[in-house]
Amino acid sequence: MGAVILPDLGTEILIPACALIGIGFALFQWVLVSRVRLSATNSPNNGAKNGYNDYLIEEEEGINDHNVVLKCAEIQNAISEGATSFLFTEYKYVGIFMVAFAILIFIFLGSVEGFSTSHQPCTYDQTKMCKPALATAFFSTVSFLLGGITSVISGFLGMKIATYANARTTLEARKGVGKAFIAAFRSGAVMGFLLASNGLLVLYIAINVFKMYYGDDWGGLFEAITGYGLGGSSMALFGRVGGGIYTKAADVGADLVGKVERNIPEDDPRNPAVIADNVGDNVGDIAGMGSDLFGSYAESSCAALVVASISSFGVNHEFTAMLYPLVVSSVGIIVCLLTTLFATDFFEIKAVMEIEPALKKQLVISTVLMTFGIAIASWIALPSSFTIFNFGEQKVVKNWQLFLCVAVGLWAGLIIGFVTEYYTSNAYSPVQDVADSCRTGAATNVIFGLALGYKSVIIPIFAIAVSIFVSFSFAAMYGIAVAALGMLSTIATGLAIDAYGPISDNAGGIAEMAGMSHRIRERTDALDAAGNTTAAIGKGFAIGSAALVSLALFGAFVSRANITTVDVLTPKVFIGLLVGAMLPYWFSAMTMKSVGSAALKMVEEVRRQFNTIPGLLEGTGKPDYSTCVKISTDASIKEMIPPGALVMLTPLIVGIFFGVETLSGVLAGSLVSGVQAGTSDHARSLGPKGSDPHKAAVIGDTVGDPLKDTSGPSLNILIKLMAVESLVFAPFFATHGGILFKL
Amino acid sequence: MGAVILPDLGTEILIPACALIGIGFALFQWVLVSRVRLSATNSPNNGAKNGYNDYLIEEEEGINDHNVVLKCAEIQNAISEGATSFLFTEYKYVGIFMVAFAILIFIFLGSVEGFSTSHQPCTYDQTKMCKPALATAFFSTVSFLLGGITSVISGFLGMKIATYANARTTLEARKGVGKAFIAAFRSGAVMGFLLASNGLLVLYIAINVFKMYYGDDWGGLFEAITGYGLGGSSMALFGRVGGGIYTKAADVGADLVGKVERNIPEDDPRNPAVIADNVGDNVGDIAGMGSDLFGSYAESSCAALVVASISSFGVNHEFTAMLYPLVVSSVGIIVCLLTTLFATDFFEIKAVMEIEPALKKQLVISTVLMTFGIAIASWIALPSSFTIFNFGEQKVVKNWQLFLCVAVGLWAGLIIGFVTEYYTSNAYSPVQDVADSCRTGAATNVIFGLALGYKSVIIPIFAIAVSIFVSFSFAAMYGIAVAALGMLSTIATGLAIDAYGPISDNAGGIAEMAGMSHRIRERTDALDAAGNTTAAIGKGFAIGSAALVSLALFGAFVSRANITTVDVLTPKVFIGLLVGAMLPYWFSAMTMKSVGSAALKMVEEVRRQFNTIPGLLEGTGKPDYSTCVKISTDASIKEMIPPGALVMLTPLIVGIFFGVETLSGVLAGSLVSGVQAGTSDHARSLGPKGSDPHKAAVIGDTVGDPLKDTSGPSLNILIKLMAVESLVFAPFFATHGGILFKL
Repeated sequence: MGAVILPDLGTEILIPACALIGIGFALFQWVLVSRVRLSATNSPNNGAKNGYNDYLIEEEEGINDHNVVLKCAEIQNAISEGATSFLFTEYKYVGIFMVAFAILIFIFLGSVEGFSTSHQPCTYDQTKMCKPALATAFFSTVSFLLGGITSVISGFLGMKIATYANARTTLEARKGVGKAFIAAFRSGAVMGFLLASNGLLVLYIAINVFKMYYGDDWGGLFEAITGYGLGGSSMALFGRVGGGIYTKAADVGADLVGKVERNIPEDDPRNPAVIADNVGDNVGDIAGMGSDLFGSYAESSCAALVVASISSFGVNHEFTAMLYPLVVSSVGIIVCLLTTLFATDFFEIKAVMEIEPALKKQLVISTVLMTFGIAIASWIALPSSFTIFNFGEQKVVKNWQLFLCVAVGLWAGLIIGFVTEYYTSNAYSPVQDVADSCRTGAATNVIFGLALGYKSVIIPIFAIAVSIFVSFSFAAMYGIAVAALGMLSTIATGLAIDAYGPISDNAGGIAEMAGMSHRIRERTDALDAAGNTTAAIGKGFAIGSAALVSLALFGAFVSRANITTVDVLTPKVFIGLLVGAMLPYWFSAMTMKSVGSAALKMVEEVRRQFNTIPGLLEGTGKPDYSTCVKISTDASIKEMIPPGALVMLTPLIVGIFFGVETLSGVLAGSLVSGVQAGTSDHARSLGPKGSDPHKAAVIGDTVGDPLKDTSGPSLNILIKLMAVESLVFAPFFATHGGILFKL
Repeated sequence: MGAVILPDLGTEILIPACALIGIGFALFQWVLVSRVRLSATNSPNNGAKNGYNDYLIEEEEGINDHNVVLKCAEIQNAISEGATSFLFTEYKYVGIFMVAFAILIFIFLGSVEGFSTSHQPCTYDQTKMCKPALATAFFSTVSFLLGGITSVISGFLGMKIATYANARTTLEARKGVGKAFIAAFRSGAVMGFLLASNGLLVLYIAINVFKMYYGDDWGGLFEAITGYGLGGSSMALFGRVGGGIYTKAADVGADLVGKVERNIPEDDPRNPAVIADNVGDNVGDIAGMGSDLFGSYAESSCAALVVASISSFGVNHEFTAMLYPLVVSSVGIIVCLLTTLFATDFFEIKAVMEIEPALKKQLVISTVLMTFGIAIASWIALPSSFTIFNFGEQKVVKNWQLFLCVAVGLWAGLIIGFVTEYYTSNAYSPVQDVADSCRTGAATNVIFGLALGYKSVIIPIFAIAVSIFVSFSFAAMYGIAVAALGMLSTIATGLAIDAYGPISDNAGGIAEMAGMSHRIRERTDALDAAGNTTAAIGKGFAIGSAALVSLALFGAFVSRANITTVDVLTPKVFIGLLVGAMLPYWFSAMTMKSVGSAALKMVEEVRRQFNTIPGLLEGTGKPDYSTCVKISTDASIKEMIPPGALVMLTPLIVGIFFGVETLSGVLAGSLVSGVQAGTSDHARSLGPKGSDPHKAAVIGDTVGDPLKDTSGPSLNILIKLMAVESLVFAPFFATHGGILFKL
């Protein structure tokens, strides 16, 4: 089997060290961003105190204008307060759910062996004794809560830094596009590094603490750890759905009345829904996405660990090899740190057209560097040959094969990213065709947009299929899990790019609302346009990794439920497949309807304000922002419950009544169907500004928005969450499930 | 095992007798419809010659107006000529494809045993000798051509009777809504009975002719017969796609410019695309749908027969039991004949609001009667107990169990029909909600419409899942095949209802174009509105039966390719599943893009004519109808090739390069994904007439149209056709396939 180069002590130091470096780097970036003063008192001498005065690109009108700075600070406060209050309201409801679900986990898993406290024969090796199911129940519950809390913190911190940075980006835009880009990108990096490092650190600590109780029963230990993924993903579900409904209700409402009916520009302060719209960017695209990617990261780590625990690593207690997934993530943090310097320090953006290439370069650099990183991790942390559990048998795997599994995931992510960019950037023909179709009206625009969305699925699906085939052939389900981990190994950079988008979007909004000059608005628009495309890339990553993660979790579930084949030719599995494939549609119908209803209310409120508040359109009356914020908040809190219940209850109902075979079918069906639907919603329908075609474009954009920002991203979570939930409850379903067929 | 009550001679008489009764009934209905004179010379004394003068409900203005009759005849001619010329053009191209594909079938299947002419050991019983693969190749090719020709004839005759009946329905509408209803419904029945009876008769004759060569080798005989299904479905694919693109390009073009931009009513003769629009109804919704349902019928019969041939029926040469699927269809024709009388003779429609209930009553009556019909067929044509081949083993089945399999399919069809009606009829809240959303514009309307479409999937999927579970549990894949047959057993009535819709639609168009009174137009509109909902019911049936048929074909393919499990947990199968689930999206992207491009051209042409032809909008200039007809024709012929190639080539490429396991995955994936996508496209977005909300509704309707009339229905065929093609080529793939993995 060969020895592992990295000693166990080295692993024990390496992982937390990398995590702490990541956190330190994030804090350092935050400090750099905070040097941009937002208080008006300091702004007269800002040339000296704002930092960067060594390479000030240009001076401009309004740079010393107290009023503008004050106005920006005021708007930022309004956005920050709206976002914070929404998140607190959301967390209150979600907290109740967490507690209830934690109790459910404890009761269900505890009941597997009738709450017995005595040791039991191990599942995979009946000759040995393992910790009781009650212990798994307890530690699963704990790790579930840990995952949930970490997810909440990740999302919340992301929102905080984003609302801290948006006005600062606006102010920096006065000095030039390069300055503004750096401010926005650094803030994104804060979120990316905090999230990746926290996720890694909490997981690492949990493993070490749990190990004190579990000792040598690594199977039980890593089974309990899977609760971490479930907790993370449950939060992500509510974050994505609630945030998604919020942001799109506000956006659709603001656009339809403002842009189409009243012909006022985007983010115009006269539009009553404009603050809600900007709040939405922060709670949906920042907090929601942060929770989502944290969930993916936690789940892929858990899936890899649980499979490893019943492979030779776990059986022979090879600690470093066992924690290989965490070693890869640790290396990823260092790689992303280096990559970030390329955007903020090694090169300098001087013109608008350099923004998008700079962001794309981030992806390429991180992928290339990470390939070496994976090679090193595989070389030092893995024995040259080992065995992996493969549905009842052990499969021999070489370390270079596992390297290829991780690398194929990593590179598939890059391909998906670039294909998504091709289909969503207005630099290429697909989006230009859609824009062209606006000439004949909104209907043809929507038809072309939907068709383009469907088409954008094709290459990503082939990329995912190839990664699955390669990684599965080399290392069975463990291969899939580490491929997912490979795709997520550059998560810090990916998140930085992702978070950059909404921050720039907000910055633009603040510029418009603060009445800053056209020139500054042009710069923030350029930042925003680049951010829109890269946000689509981020979503591509999210859905690609979700597909791999879900499959890995599915594999782990199947192993844990003692199933060896999932045969499509049996009726139990086939009907599961059929119903599972329907779930993404059901879910989408719910969320789209929710967005539609919330948007309806918003449209009517905005119309009402324009009609009843005197002088609003002329700029003399003041709109009532808070009513719009309240509409979005109430609607999203209320509307996130039914889709949330659908996702959380389906595995429980199917598992309890129909058993693990049908549940396998449901997971496979929702996976293959959800991936398509998710990816297909990427396409944006943009049109050239102008009268009728532009209105058509806005309508098309509005139709596409809930698909790409609410239903689509939530579908990632649907497929992952159902899989991880099934995995956590697998022992319960295997013991007590399928009562309908038992009768 | 027990004896069969119906002697073989009885079966030999019963099947062709029922088929001939069906054909006779269809011709009789045609004669009744033809009594409505369309030549102006006879119209003065039409009171005496038109028949029905015993219960003439009301007399009205214009009934004796020569000019109106002449005008109707003229418009009818234009529509009929346009449709005929399009179909001939389509058949020319499709004919070339048929010949080429026939050669391919012969070469591929012949090569299985190297074109050897000597007998070979049978696949399922190596001790016996069977006919050579070359014979299967030859007879498969013949039955492929037979299936294709029958499909073409079915579609063409349907189009002919529809274009024969539309103007007659208009003229009858002068006498009252009841008269018009009967004319339209009788014409639909002509198509329904001709198609069901021809399909049965040709299949029956082919079996008897092939049997002269095959003798006791029933396995080989019914393998060769599967070509009939492939031929039928290939034609259906091109019919649906070509016809679908044609009709929607014309419809979208006519609506967007006419209704939205120029504010002229639907079917206004000033609109240059109006003739193309009416032609489209006949080539898309009549000819295309006829070919489609014929394909489903042929395929479900073939799937049932091929499974039966390797079950005890085939092995013991029980002729009557073997032909049980055909006996069920024969009984179905008689049941539908009785059902039709309820609509045309036993009851009488006197008011507009009675139309929709009358059509729904047809569905209920045929389903109830057919339940008894199936019971009788199962009682007389089946032994009390028999065995069915179930992936390598034989499963014992009782005749009452098989009765339940057929009945569950039949009733699932009714449920799907009614659920579809609920989601598409403006009598219920879902459509009213969508209509309500028009208040806030086209975007919310489209969002609500899409959400409703997604939601309409849920119950049908559960209905299909239950039928699959019940029929699979009782009688494995044979159960699924006969469940599909059960759903299609009332096909004559279903088609009559379906065809009624476009005929009424055309009748309304002719009334408008001939300048008939508002009152008559109101009547035809009422007929049309009922037809729209029932057309959606028909599509529900089509997709439901397609799901069952595909699964049955999939099962037959798996049996024939000697696969015993299709395990999702193997990479070969899983990537097939993933890519298969993507195909419906790829296909939809292609067809929607095609409709979009064709509609773009049409919109520009219609705009051009309005802008350049003097006096067109005022009614003094004459539009150039033929250019619009030509645009639709050219676009649909050109655009049907890429999606057609995607469907036809995928099984070949996957089978040859990746082998039968991956192909199984692709079939299962496309099945579970295509069913959803197909069903979800049902929803119609209608709005109340009025200015802005009405325009929003038209835009929503326009977006929904290609989904429901082009992509959606074609997806039925995609899933069925790939399955039947795989089945026909199964021996080739099993022998020579999977070369990529063999390397």
